[in-house]
Amino acid sequence: MAESCDLLVRADFVLTQDDERTVLPGAALAVRDGLVAALGPAERLEESFAPARRIDLGAALVMPGLVNACTNAGMTVFRGLPGNDAKNPATSILHDPRAATIAARIACAEMIRTGTTCFADVFAPAEVVLVAADESGLRCVAGGLLDPDANGDMEGAMEHPRLRRLVTAPDMAMAAPGELEAAFALSRECGCLFVVRTAVSARATTAFAARHGVRPLEFLRRQGMLAANTLLTHCADILPEEIEILAASGAAVVHCPRADARRAVGFAPVRSMLEAGARLALGTGSPRDAGDLNMFGEMNAAALMHKAHLHDPMAVRADMALDMATRGGADALGWPGLGRLAPGSPADFMALDLTRPGLMPLLNPVSQAVYAATGHENVLTVCAGRVLFERGRFTTIDHAALAAEAAELAALARSHAG
Amino acid sequence: MAESCDLLVRADFVLTQDDERTVLPGAALAVRDGLVAALGPAERLEESFAPARRIDLGAALVMPGLVNACTNAGMTVFRGLPGNDAKNPATSILHDPRAATIAARIACAEMIRTGTTCFADVFAPAEVVLVAADESGLRCVAGGLLDPDANGDMEGAMEHPRLRRLVTAPDMAMAAPGELEAAFALSRECGCLFVVRTAVSARATTAFAARHGVRPLEFLRRQGMLAANTLLTHCADILPEEIEILAASGAAVVHCPRADARRAVGFAPVRSMLEAGARLALGTGSPRDAGDLNMFGEMNAAALMHKAHLHDPMAVRADMALDMATRGGADALGWPGLGRLAPGSPADFMALDLTRPGLMPLLNPVSQAVYAATGHENVLTVCAGRVLFERGRFTTIDHAALAAEAAELAALARSHAG
Repeated sequence: MAESCDLLVRADFVLTQDDERTVLPGAALAVRDGLVAALGPAERLEESFAPARRIDLGAALVMPGLVNACTNAGMTVFRGLPGNDAKNPATSILHDPRAATIAARIACAEMIRTGTTCFADVFAPAEVVLVAADESGLRCVAGGLLDPDANGDMEGAMEHPRLRRLVTAPDMAMAAPGELEAAFALSRECGCLFVVRTAVSARATTAFAARHGVRPLEFLRRQGMLAANTLLTHCADILPEEIEILAASGAAVVHCPRADARRAVGFAPVRSMLEAGARLALGTGSPRDAGDLNMFGEMNAAALMHKAHLHDPMAVRADMALDMATRGGADALGWPGLGRLAPGSPADFMALDLTRPGLMPLLNPVSQAVYAATGHENVLTVCAGRVLFERGRFTTIDHAALAAEAAELAALARSHAG
Repeated sequence: MAESCDLLVRADFVLTQDDERTVLPGAALAVRDGLVAALGPAERLEESFAPARRIDLGAALVMPGLVNACTNAGMTVFRGLPGNDAKNPATSILHDPRAATIAARIACAEMIRTGTTCFADVFAPAEVVLVAADESGLRCVAGGLLDPDANGDMEGAMEHPRLRRLVTAPDMAMAAPGELEAAFALSRECGCLFVVRTAVSARATTAFAARHGVRPLEFLRRQGMLAANTLLTHCADILPEEIEILAASGAAVVHCPRADARRAVGFAPVRSMLEAGARLALGTGSPRDAGDLNMFGEMNAAALMHKAHLHDPMAVRADMALDMATRGGADALGWPGLGRLAPGSPADFMALDLTRPGLMPLLNPVSQAVYAATGHENVLTVCAGRVLFERGRFTTIDHAALAAEAAELAALARSHAG
């Protein structure tokens, strides 16, 4: 007798990102209670399950929802600003709660549209981002620091199935004695992530070393802050010996290649970090820098830039970029069930429409996802078993209302810019 | 009394790329006989024209159709291949006329979808590409060399309003004495472009210099081949003194940042070439390398990569990338009316839907187009006054038939791979 399930999704290919990186042709995926109940040959699952709803995608590639391991949803307001000539354009808008709310909603809509189902966010106040993520149905780990109250209620959100808290470390160069230690202690106490912006550029590292007598990574190591719950963002200026320390420590790194490029800080030694066995995730960083919150752009940049920089066509392969954007991100955020599709894992996935000319013909799904896809070929976003986006329509977001809010946000930005 | 016109398109913004780089808010564009009859404030144009058809795009950004100044449409078949570990995978498929036809059709569909309206192509046989471009309604300059007959009928296509011929130079390193000269002479005789793959990598330049005693650019200069109709592709390994020669010569360069990255050859000195006053265009190069024929990805890569490489946030600004992809490409292809929207210019344009979350909010149209857009936000492609794509639908391409052909192409590729 057929088992019941909430949703059965069928597609020409399922890129599982399981331990064997299995790609299933002609496959289906059964969803029950927010989890993947089963996945395998479509015919077998059709026989085994009696779904409440069936979606047959046909020529599509189902893959795990992507994990944006570091962004700043509230900074979406700055995405349209030219160059990096104006470093701090009217940051007063970041303290405008209405602007922050709209910016976070736009960020969530963009992530849903382009197949990201989980993101870590360092915007403050974190509540704004958590509310936007909750309303939109996304998974989110958030906790910014600008507002001293941002990490106040650490317990409240911890019980939520899709929302978690993180602790953002204060700026390492500017922190008063004891501040970093207190933030780290709080993260340990609450059992949550500790996110540190580290070695973002040679200039920043040099300035830190001049003040503290050691480079930032060594500082963190001495303080016992390179722990399994530590997430280092950027790490663009890291020495070979520091890579060894990093890999041995168990701390994770979020690589943000486009933000690093936009800020002209160079190329983080990602290939060396991967070779050393460091835990690597991928993130857009602030949309102020990357211009968007689209993880397909980030995978593409990670795969291409290091090839050019290292003069090595295998420097960061497509499968490495995809791993960082899925399993790697899940691992770095301490949410290891995500970023892969396997029985029992959370039902977070997306689907590329393979009939888009830019994805024709299909010879290698991983290469296609990393080198050819832009994210806008996505036709289905499911998070925790719930359909958030399907063939151009958002289910949790009022698109017309959001467009009106975006116009309001642009006006707010102009008024803050004076 | 109102003038008649074929089409009147209205949108919140028109990015003209005219000499002053005017951005018109609340504007309209009147099209007649394939040309821009007028553009200006929407209200004024609505009064002045009685259009046969009216398209009101609302929250959209109209911009010139992009110019892909060098690609290889027939190579679309290779886009899904992993890494660059296999340099020449089953190239026998390139001699399969059915495969070439399908690949070229896919390429045209992808370009129309992502707002490219004109492309230069070096695939052989060129007839296949010209036919695909003609059928799809695109503008194309084509002429490959693999097939000795490819440049045979140089006159036939020259009379076509959207199609032109070019001469692809034989491989500089491998050419027999006199071959390059003959190709250049043919291009001068026919008054068409002469496309030379030049200095594609340090290795190629070194190998050339070892054989010929001079580096490739100096070789071309001595032969009198650095002319106004010469288009140098890649130019990744160019010395400072060669940049001066190049700029003085009047020859144009097609920068292909993603192809250069994928092939791990490094970063062409684009900033220095621009500063020296060289004529710069942008191209995807072969989809085998870049993975697609999407000029938005190419603009983004051009704007980001050089910032990281040169540690200069202003290295290649958004407006420079956009210029290369529009006016620069038009100039390099010897088709200077293209790449801008002004009265009398060809009516080649596209429109980004500004209600896509990834394009919200809009503060600076040029930054948004280069740093945030992926090309898939395009909702209208017009070439020579004809609508080729509108809100998800192709007008000249049978999308379902193309999807079936893509499956056929994938099967052909597998059979050629043995």
